[in-house]
Amino acid sequence: MKKKRICVVGGVAGGASCAARARRLDENAEIIIFEKGPFVSFANCGLPYYVGDVIRREEHLLVATPEMFRQRFNIEVRLHSEVVGIDRDGRRISVRDHQTGREYEETYDALVLSPGSSPVRPPIEGVDLPGVFFLRTIPDSRAIRNLIEERDAGSAVIIGGGYIGLEMAENLVRRGLRVTVVEMQHQLMPACDPEMVLPLHEVLVQKGVDVRLGAHVERIEEAASGGMTVRLRSGEGISASLVIVAVGVRPEVQLAREAGLHLGPLGGIRVNDRMQTSDPAIYAVGDAVEVVHVVTGRQTLLALAGPANRQGRIAADVICGRDARFRGVQGTAVVGLFDYALAMTGPSEKILKSLGLWDEPYGCEKIYLHPGHHASYYPGAETITMKLIFSKKDGRILGLQAVGKKGAVRRTDVIAMALQKGGTVFDLEEAELCYAPQFGSAKDPVNLAGMIAANVVRGDVDIVHAENMDRPPENVVVLDVREPFEFRRGHIPGAVHIPLGVLRQRMGELPKDREIWAYCYVGQRSYVAARALRQHGFQAKNLSGGYRSYEMWRRAVQDGPSAPA
Amino acid sequence: MKKKRICVVGGVAGGASCAARARRLDENAEIIIFEKGPFVSFANCGLPYYVGDVIRREEHLLVATPEMFRQRFNIEVRLHSEVVGIDRDGRRISVRDHQTGREYEETYDALVLSPGSSPVRPPIEGVDLPGVFFLRTIPDSRAIRNLIEERDAGSAVIIGGGYIGLEMAENLVRRGLRVTVVEMQHQLMPACDPEMVLPLHEVLVQKGVDVRLGAHVERIEEAASGGMTVRLRSGEGISASLVIVAVGVRPEVQLAREAGLHLGPLGGIRVNDRMQTSDPAIYAVGDAVEVVHVVTGRQTLLALAGPANRQGRIAADVICGRDARFRGVQGTAVVGLFDYALAMTGPSEKILKSLGLWDEPYGCEKIYLHPGHHASYYPGAETITMKLIFSKKDGRILGLQAVGKKGAVRRTDVIAMALQKGGTVFDLEEAELCYAPQFGSAKDPVNLAGMIAANVVRGDVDIVHAENMDRPPENVVVLDVREPFEFRRGHIPGAVHIPLGVLRQRMGELPKDREIWAYCYVGQRSYVAARALRQHGFQAKNLSGGYRSYEMWRRAVQDGPSAPA
Repeated sequence: MKKKRICVVGGVAGGASCAARARRLDENAEIIIFEKGPFVSFANCGLPYYVGDVIRREEHLLVATPEMFRQRFNIEVRLHSEVVGIDRDGRRISVRDHQTGREYEETYDALVLSPGSSPVRPPIEGVDLPGVFFLRTIPDSRAIRNLIEERDAGSAVIIGGGYIGLEMAENLVRRGLRVTVVEMQHQLMPACDPEMVLPLHEVLVQKGVDVRLGAHVERIEEAASGGMTVRLRSGEGISASLVIVAVGVRPEVQLAREAGLHLGPLGGIRVNDRMQTSDPAIYAVGDAVEVVHVVTGRQTLLALAGPANRQGRIAADVICGRDARFRGVQGTAVVGLFDYALAMTGPSEKILKSLGLWDEPYGCEKIYLHPGHHASYYPGAETITMKLIFSKKDGRILGLQAVGKKGAVRRTDVIAMALQKGGTVFDLEEAELCYAPQFGSAKDPVNLAGMIAANVVRGDVDIVHAENMDRPPENVVVLDVREPFEFRRGHIPGAVHIPLGVLRQRMGELPKDREIWAYCYVGQRSYVAARALRQHGFQAKNLSGGYRSYEMWRRAVQDGPSAPA
Repeated sequence: MKKKRICVVGGVAGGASCAARARRLDENAEIIIFEKGPFVSFANCGLPYYVGDVIRREEHLLVATPEMFRQRFNIEVRLHSEVVGIDRDGRRISVRDHQTGREYEETYDALVLSPGSSPVRPPIEGVDLPGVFFLRTIPDSRAIRNLIEERDAGSAVIIGGGYIGLEMAENLVRRGLRVTVVEMQHQLMPACDPEMVLPLHEVLVQKGVDVRLGAHVERIEEAASGGMTVRLRSGEGISASLVIVAVGVRPEVQLAREAGLHLGPLGGIRVNDRMQTSDPAIYAVGDAVEVVHVVTGRQTLLALAGPANRQGRIAADVICGRDARFRGVQGTAVVGLFDYALAMTGPSEKILKSLGLWDEPYGCEKIYLHPGHHASYYPGAETITMKLIFSKKDGRILGLQAVGKKGAVRRTDVIAMALQKGGTVFDLEEAELCYAPQFGSAKDPVNLAGMIAANVVRGDVDIVHAENMDRPPENVVVLDVREPFEFRRGHIPGAVHIPLGVLRQRMGELPKDREIWAYCYVGQRSYVAARALRQHGFQAKNLSGGYRSYEMWRRAVQDGPSAPA
């Protein structure tokens, strides 16, 4: 039998996983990885932390070497080798060796494209200045380190407030730089919901970072001092010895496009669930491909290593004759920022609304909660703020965002698994999770999220949200059921105050012909109040997440950073 | 309509949850909690940490007060009030007020028994001495604190090496006591598998605790010094100023038994999935009831707060006319010991084998792995040792044990959710979980567990286990594929050594007519080796979990603490 020849374009994440898996499945195949850069399979998610000197040595970023691929897997890795053309009919690729300048051809039986994505280069004057960086490779991060260490860079402007922008902000603060983050949108982490991003925004400000939202960079100018000035559209200039541009990535599709492979509506390489492109001998995986989002059903681009690895394995399976299918993505992700983590799975409210899926077909509802990451009676409990999105029709879990100092990732992972399995809020309600006082609560945050949402799905309580408090209808009575000391510290304007403990005695003070919107600090006491009122003939609703969610919304959206200018 | 009268016996966990839920569902019901102790709804899981002064103030253990129940829920709590009899025909209970000595009757429409469990009192002479404690209540822990603080207790013997025994060991070490743990079985945490408990055993020894396995206490003697001597069956005496007896709990069923309610085969109160006893007007929840284990299908007793709370809610639902069902338990639990956590969900190998379920009907297999809790290239990764039990027939997840300094609880919770949803190892393989280098890996430990197990289910690799290495069949070649420096540090007796990097060149040295059992440090390189060998016509198998699992088994079972005497 003829040996199968598998050529892999790109040696990071998906490509490397594919090659290694193919070897385990087929000892006889000839497998070659072509990597245009100087490294194979490096830890690109670690780059910001290498800049921050958390990861101290460059070699720690090298997950694998060509030597290891050769010895362990009998896989040939060609570095500095760019695949510049595909002859699909002849099943040949043209390869340019950047070290020798030589160009040559190789044949393939199966070709796997794992070209990744490249940073978006905004059309700004000055973006090519030597102090401007796009953090994508080890040499990029090495150059930034050098600038900090050798040229004593004192200030940095980061253009873009997404994952990489925030991670770079943390790491440059760690290196002692004065940092400004400039974000075009009216919030950081634009794919998330603004109120859930607020804790990240606030910790950034607390750490001395100057955060500019809704701000557009006009150009980057060379300054007389030798540094640069980042000029905003407003005319203001921010001086910086270092500029990081992190305004997103776009799929690397040039090779695929030139080969006539079909692209998807978002500009990524189109693949089926076996990771085959429009040419069944050519597979594509990783950041460059469009995949189906399991919740929205839409095509999506997701530049994350986990799905890339899974796709690489599936491509290898299919190449080796197995019937593997990629199940799609659900968008599980996390960003760490100082002590905080913001974790998510499934789409945000913002995304669901922008896709027109919120009301129909899903009948979405959301609930907020603020549980401790472990039992409150054990010292050191940190609050997790959670936002669960689900279908009011059948309780299906659609998405979660969780933010806090501890425990947010764990609950997100549990709910990611529930979502993967088509789970409902009722499943969360009856989940059986680890409990000891230092690790959780007898009613874990996941259980609480399920209970609160299940109460809504079952119709036991009607809820309202902080944004409804902006201008409640005229006939609404806003009712604060907290203790007097809490009410005095701050309350929703116009609220009537009757603590839960005396509510049953004082119900007569409330009208039965108007809606009553009850709230407490996190929504638990007011849920009890709403249940009691309703059974006594009142039209009561509960403010989900209580005053705490109201404050997050107010600071993030109404008065705060995300308020439209 | 007549008000419904709901009487709840026992105000901790299940009883308190039931009462509060009933109030939310039925504002008109009359709800009374009878609690024989001095507190309602206290944090009994916190008691060891109150002894250890981690929880510094007793009031932190009081999750709720009678006043709070009255104000917030309009629920009457009667403390020091023991229900001593049930007249089922008359729907009446007899209550003894321990403060006044008065006995009186109350009627009920629904009666909920939440009596909990009581510590097993072993029939040992001296178990009633004043320095001997059963940690079950706040007064118990207060008395231990007093003994430590006022009488300067210097040494303690803990009888029993389960959850409470270990938690007490940690907390007494924290208080500066010399601690001995005496356990009758040949391992700590007897319901877990011995090799998975080894890290807890070793950390205990490292912290200076004297651990005695397979040791039986004959009696506890008063010593001339004023302290005590714990006399073992071997004749040895261990002196102690404090003795904790923590040899398990038994359900409190006296009231139920005297009322003629059916008990189950394990001696707990028998209930249906609506938490109804054999008398449909009487419900029972919590530690005292027998529940169905969702994996084994058997009746089980599980003294944990999470299921108790769920049961309490379900009893309330049913009492209030809803169709709620308890889905059973899966035995998710965690014990923390110094830096370590041992977490689990589903039954252990030991339990499955003792119930005769291992081979049939489940066709169980197990795999071991030792991933880092986050990316290895980010500093501070701690190893999690995981043991996943699954059906080789269809990949269904049956159980997990995970132990490590960080991240074990998170992965256990994710797999607990997968198990709850009837998930398979293939679901774990394609789980999409949070990844950033400080939080996880692109291939999360959950993914790795799934991949390794899926390889077995798909038949891509045959595995062997450490215990098979004890006496491998004569015709087996044990093959170490690690690097020379690793082999030199220690290897399995009789192993042939060919590093993976040169295996393909040196395959000729291996026989094709004998089984080859390959291993490396954690099982990954030897998996690659086994795949390569198999495709080259060798009969290769992989040692699951590698040398690391072998060492754990050797130290725990073959040579170690769990070795039969």
